[in-house]
Amino acid sequence: MSPIATSTAHYHEDASSHGKELSKNPHVTGKVSGKETEKLVINTIRCLGADLCQQYKGGHPGTVMGAAAIATALWRYSMRYNPANPEWVNRDRFVLSAGHACLLQYIMLHLSGYPTWTLDQIKKYHAPTMDGIAAGHPEIEFPGVELTTGLLGQGIANAVGLAMANKNMAATYNKQDFPLIENKVWCFTGDGCLQEGVGQEAISMAGHWALDNLILVYDNNSVTVDGNIDICFTDDTNAKLQSMGWHVLEVSDGSNDLAAIVDAFDQAKKLTGKPVFINIKTIIGIGSANQNSGKVHGAALGEDDVANVKTALGFDPKQKFFVDDKVYDYFKDTTTKGAQWESDWNDLYERYKKAYPKEGAEFQRRLEGKLEEGWESKLPPKESLPKDPKATRQTSGIILRSVVPQDNSFFVGSADLCESTFVNWDGMVEFQNPETGYGDYSGRQVRYGIREHAMVAAANGLAAWQKGAIVPIMSSYFIFWLYAAPSLRMAALMKLRFIAIATHDSIGVGEDGPTHQPIAFPLFLRALPNFNYIRPADAEEVAGAWILSLKDAEHPSLLSLTRQPVPLLEGTDRNKVQYGAYIVKGDEKEVPDVTLIATGSEVARAVDTAKLLEEQNGYRVRVVSMPLTARFDAQPVEYRRSIIPSSKSLVVSIEPYASFGWAKYAHAGAHMTSFGHSAPYSVLYEHFGFGPKNLAAKISTWAESKRASDGKGWEIPGVGEFEELLLNKGH
Amino acid sequence: MSPIATSTAHYHEDASSHGKELSKNPHVTGKVSGKETEKLVINTIRCLGADLCQQYKGGHPGTVMGAAAIATALWRYSMRYNPANPEWVNRDRFVLSAGHACLLQYIMLHLSGYPTWTLDQIKKYHAPTMDGIAAGHPEIEFPGVELTTGLLGQGIANAVGLAMANKNMAATYNKQDFPLIENKVWCFTGDGCLQEGVGQEAISMAGHWALDNLILVYDNNSVTVDGNIDICFTDDTNAKLQSMGWHVLEVSDGSNDLAAIVDAFDQAKKLTGKPVFINIKTIIGIGSANQNSGKVHGAALGEDDVANVKTALGFDPKQKFFVDDKVYDYFKDTTTKGAQWESDWNDLYERYKKAYPKEGAEFQRRLEGKLEEGWESKLPPKESLPKDPKATRQTSGIILRSVVPQDNSFFVGSADLCESTFVNWDGMVEFQNPETGYGDYSGRQVRYGIREHAMVAAANGLAAWQKGAIVPIMSSYFIFWLYAAPSLRMAALMKLRFIAIATHDSIGVGEDGPTHQPIAFPLFLRALPNFNYIRPADAEEVAGAWILSLKDAEHPSLLSLTRQPVPLLEGTDRNKVQYGAYIVKGDEKEVPDVTLIATGSEVARAVDTAKLLEEQNGYRVRVVSMPLTARFDAQPVEYRRSIIPSSKSLVVSIEPYASFGWAKYAHAGAHMTSFGHSAPYSVLYEHFGFGPKNLAAKISTWAESKRASDGKGWEIPGVGEFEELLLNKGH
Repeated sequence: MSPIATSTAHYHEDASSHGKELSKNPHVTGKVSGKETEKLVINTIRCLGADLCQQYKGGHPGTVMGAAAIATALWRYSMRYNPANPEWVNRDRFVLSAGHACLLQYIMLHLSGYPTWTLDQIKKYHAPTMDGIAAGHPEIEFPGVELTTGLLGQGIANAVGLAMANKNMAATYNKQDFPLIENKVWCFTGDGCLQEGVGQEAISMAGHWALDNLILVYDNNSVTVDGNIDICFTDDTNAKLQSMGWHVLEVSDGSNDLAAIVDAFDQAKKLTGKPVFINIKTIIGIGSANQNSGKVHGAALGEDDVANVKTALGFDPKQKFFVDDKVYDYFKDTTTKGAQWESDWNDLYERYKKAYPKEGAEFQRRLEGKLEEGWESKLPPKESLPKDPKATRQTSGIILRSVVPQDNSFFVGSADLCESTFVNWDGMVEFQNPETGYGDYSGRQVRYGIREHAMVAAANGLAAWQKGAIVPIMSSYFIFWLYAAPSLRMAALMKLRFIAIATHDSIGVGEDGPTHQPIAFPLFLRALPNFNYIRPADAEEVAGAWILSLKDAEHPSLLSLTRQPVPLLEGTDRNKVQYGAYIVKGDEKEVPDVTLIATGSEVARAVDTAKLLEEQNGYRVRVVSMPLTARFDAQPVEYRRSIIPSSKSLVVSIEPYASFGWAKYAHAGAHMTSFGHSAPYSVLYEHFGFGPKNLAAKISTWAESKRASDGKGWEIPGVGEFEELLLNKGH
Repeated sequence: MSPIATSTAHYHEDASSHGKELSKNPHVTGKVSGKETEKLVINTIRCLGADLCQQYKGGHPGTVMGAAAIATALWRYSMRYNPANPEWVNRDRFVLSAGHACLLQYIMLHLSGYPTWTLDQIKKYHAPTMDGIAAGHPEIEFPGVELTTGLLGQGIANAVGLAMANKNMAATYNKQDFPLIENKVWCFTGDGCLQEGVGQEAISMAGHWALDNLILVYDNNSVTVDGNIDICFTDDTNAKLQSMGWHVLEVSDGSNDLAAIVDAFDQAKKLTGKPVFINIKTIIGIGSANQNSGKVHGAALGEDDVANVKTALGFDPKQKFFVDDKVYDYFKDTTTKGAQWESDWNDLYERYKKAYPKEGAEFQRRLEGKLEEGWESKLPPKESLPKDPKATRQTSGIILRSVVPQDNSFFVGSADLCESTFVNWDGMVEFQNPETGYGDYSGRQVRYGIREHAMVAAANGLAAWQKGAIVPIMSSYFIFWLYAAPSLRMAALMKLRFIAIATHDSIGVGEDGPTHQPIAFPLFLRALPNFNYIRPADAEEVAGAWILSLKDAEHPSLLSLTRQPVPLLEGTDRNKVQYGAYIVKGDEKEVPDVTLIATGSEVARAVDTAKLLEEQNGYRVRVVSMPLTARFDAQPVEYRRSIIPSSKSLVVSIEPYASFGWAKYAHAGAHMTSFGHSAPYSVLYEHFGFGPKNLAAKISTWAESKRASDGKGWEIPGVGEFEELLLNKGH
């Protein structure tokens, strides 16, 4: 049987800043209950882990077994939560960055008394069923899971976002004697998340902001899928975390020494001024014949080994999924304490609302996921928008400044391009550690640094914090959003609301050249389920894009904005952006000879092209702006056909991205067939063929080749006949 | 005028490992020539930078001015290269990770005598022209540029790849007294690249491998676009680099103290056992009224300020683009020395080829970008492939093992999933620091760690090293390639050859759930120019995918492979993969009622569905496998219509990704309209409707709705009428 010995928690502190070493041999606090029960609890978790993976011969048993003591410390002693109400606003948050170890979390949710997490539910882990909640990675839809994790590194950044949210809410609403928000965010990580770039970015951010409400628990088992960790990862992790502004604690026997773990967690909760990293050495798959090896990471142990484990731990090898009543008893306290905590908090909140009615009402509104009443009316109407050509990144700034400053729901930031993306405003306060002198935690302008990936992953944490209470707005140049693609995808999977301001889209980037000109990336965002990729044509559609994004609480939105100026168009209408596509030029009742579909900065070019085709060729031309393809696809077929009459009209799509996807709507298209080039945007537009004169020439030549033999009307091309009208040879 | 004083290079060493501090006050070596000339050179670079940005009122002058002394040290004293032959194999490599500072590199390429880089060419920086080589970021196509950089962080990882290549080539070919490959890789970085996750991953990798041929030069100007760096980035960078296994040097006045910089570079070249980080403090935009601020980062200074700068530096403010002859004289040496270095090396190489004819011939073959003769014939023919169903990740392993072990051109690795992606082989040697005992630098199995982004960015460096000499093969689970999307894109932009092994594609991932099931990401890869996204149907197509990828020296390829078994199909043909799509079932001469297009693991399902439609509905059904859409699009129209007769046959696409893009070929499709779910793959296929019975039912119901009114033939749907046959409600 694995012994549960009392060991020590060593405290490391950056010598240059403090130099002191706290409690090298701390006394175990009185909290830890009788040793025998502890052994039983920890071994029960291990055997459950072995059984539940063996059941359907799959899953990740190693961490369940190795980190059972850590989990016991967290759920039994260290975290503050109420199992009966997983949504209690002032709970501690737990994020499993090592999402593949979800079975450990599920077992703990069960043992600690979350009603939904019955033993039967846990038994559905890896079962051939669609109705389980014990998914292969933790999913936000289920109680006790803060965010969906499993793509390595994301969880650390999500946890940073939750910690930011708590800091900001506390700084905004807490009052003397009214600690409305006062809790910790616990994040459980393996080495994988620490190796990933997004994890490192997030760690650096958290250190910069001195998020001392964040505790990162490192399950340091020294084993990876492919073997010992030192085949690929030999950082001095403690020193690295210290260099990024973290407190560092260490526990030497984290698989067994519950007392030391609890003690380290107690210390972590008391430390201030920096986030806390706890490096806990564990033995993966402890008890298995293959313990301490990659073999126990992601595969069931096998019947024989499971039996051996149980025998070694004093369990009956024939009994599966066994939980002694003593184990449940051991966790009974969590339900009682949790109810008390929440009840005390509810009292506090009631008193708060009386003492601070304005703040209380605002806090309550945000908990209900509502924005400030009447926000939409604060947007400038079309007639007040600038008449002269402006970049849509600029007009987005106008909209932002009309709604964001006065509503604390908005949490705005950029990856070091605040002024260029127009997300700043007069009088804004930066979200900063007050000691820096740059701002404080009530600030809502966030300097994410040049860390796009962690910016979005953290924003997912912000958006998930009491979903709807915070609307994260982040910004960067469009191409750098590709760095954050995994987190954009996770936001869509989790159905979180945020607004991503992506400026400098398409070849309009100009001189910075092909590295910075997105050609294919936008198409990924169009293909992504639950995601609003919006490319507004002008300031009016920018307003529409903001309205749509803010009203759609179940989707993240990305606004694809120009670097270069575009005119305010006569036919644009903010209220029609929600339909995905609509007519900006031409009569709805008349079937056009040619329908031009364009997006963003090309809508104005399409309008100019249409005029040329009308003048030079006598065509009836309709121009359709299609800012959001997914919304258009979701319209009734009658609407779609009324906008794009592709069975009667020749349809041409115009957009300086790859043509991929456009054959769904158009018979031919003017698109990029290569990467871009480094030159001023006006030169590029001409070179690649997007000048209205060239477009009109190419379109009319193509159209004439489709003249019906009787000279009247057109031979409408069929599926499979899509033609590229521009064949450019760039990179 | 800014003084050029002699200062010191401070050497920092990890106290725990060595504890010694080298030459705290080193003597300046005799190399640095007369001070007045140096001042003139450095100030000329600064004024050129100011002029060239002012000319078209754009670009990045700040770093050109601040880092002029660093650049002078590099090109005049520290790097070994031959301007007359930028491709000389044993040159030092320079990678500008801070790609926006390219103007500095262009000026140095001009001054140091690269014939292509005339002053006239440099003057085209930001010019309204398509024919310049002074692009907004450095581009691989132009002499003296190793890789296209500018997306922050990429360059550091590219440089790691180049350093790996040099280490591997040296370990493979160098012999006693024949140091065929012996050079340094210099990488110039700003803070942006150090903040980016990919940069941090790469730094950790380089430290792990102890790449002491890599020198990372940090232009530490403490200023970012948005202001002072400490608004967002407060890492102790030196300590951080040390924690990741790097030597750290420091130069305190890097804008002026040329001697100290040269001395630090000399030290860096001599240090062994670890890569070297040189933290050089500089003043961005030095001499400008806005020096030391974000204002000089990415905007021209303005006419007045440019004049002020020139006056302060002792230049005539009216004279533009002025280069004194003394400046050219100062750099004359580089051409002479470069020619001598290469000539000496050529002699060495001739003697090498005589002394080691086998190695010499292999080295020569690789320099010519050729694989080992006859490699294609070593692939197992179709009749030798496994008859029982196998995952394509497994059959890819069979192909890999038939060509990779014996040809040193292949440099293989994984992001910690070597066995699961089947990229290992018997007798493989790991690429490792020999001191670890895990392998040595001649090894060709690379443990990239859980760092997918840096893995691919490093592979770009490997592939760019004497383009074609090395074929990088990397592997991970498909969804984690999304972490590396920016580097996949850069490979396409640079037209580099590699093979990305992406296993666990589609919902076939199964139990790991929606986080791990790609739904939209593959469509990005299809839309990306110059990229082969190949989804082979079975072992035979896997062979075809490998052949295509290896023969296509101008494109990166990603093989999209299954976790789950698929049968070897009768109709598949490796030689037809190159056409992008071809018929696997059905008669080419007969027009089918229904054409099913499928990819990867769904081709077998389409064949089964076709049989049901034939039996139950009496349809003539054709099945088309389309492993590579881009190649199909590039075929002549006759071929395309012969394979997919969409004007006569009803066409249905089948693929468990989003339908985005399929309307180009099909009238209806069976695709994912949501994210996936966590359950065994067989359950998921049924749930989401991809079981052949369900497919046949859905397709026939839809087809019957298209019966022509005369009962014979079909009413073929037009563009805009694409129908989703499966409407699944997942996440």
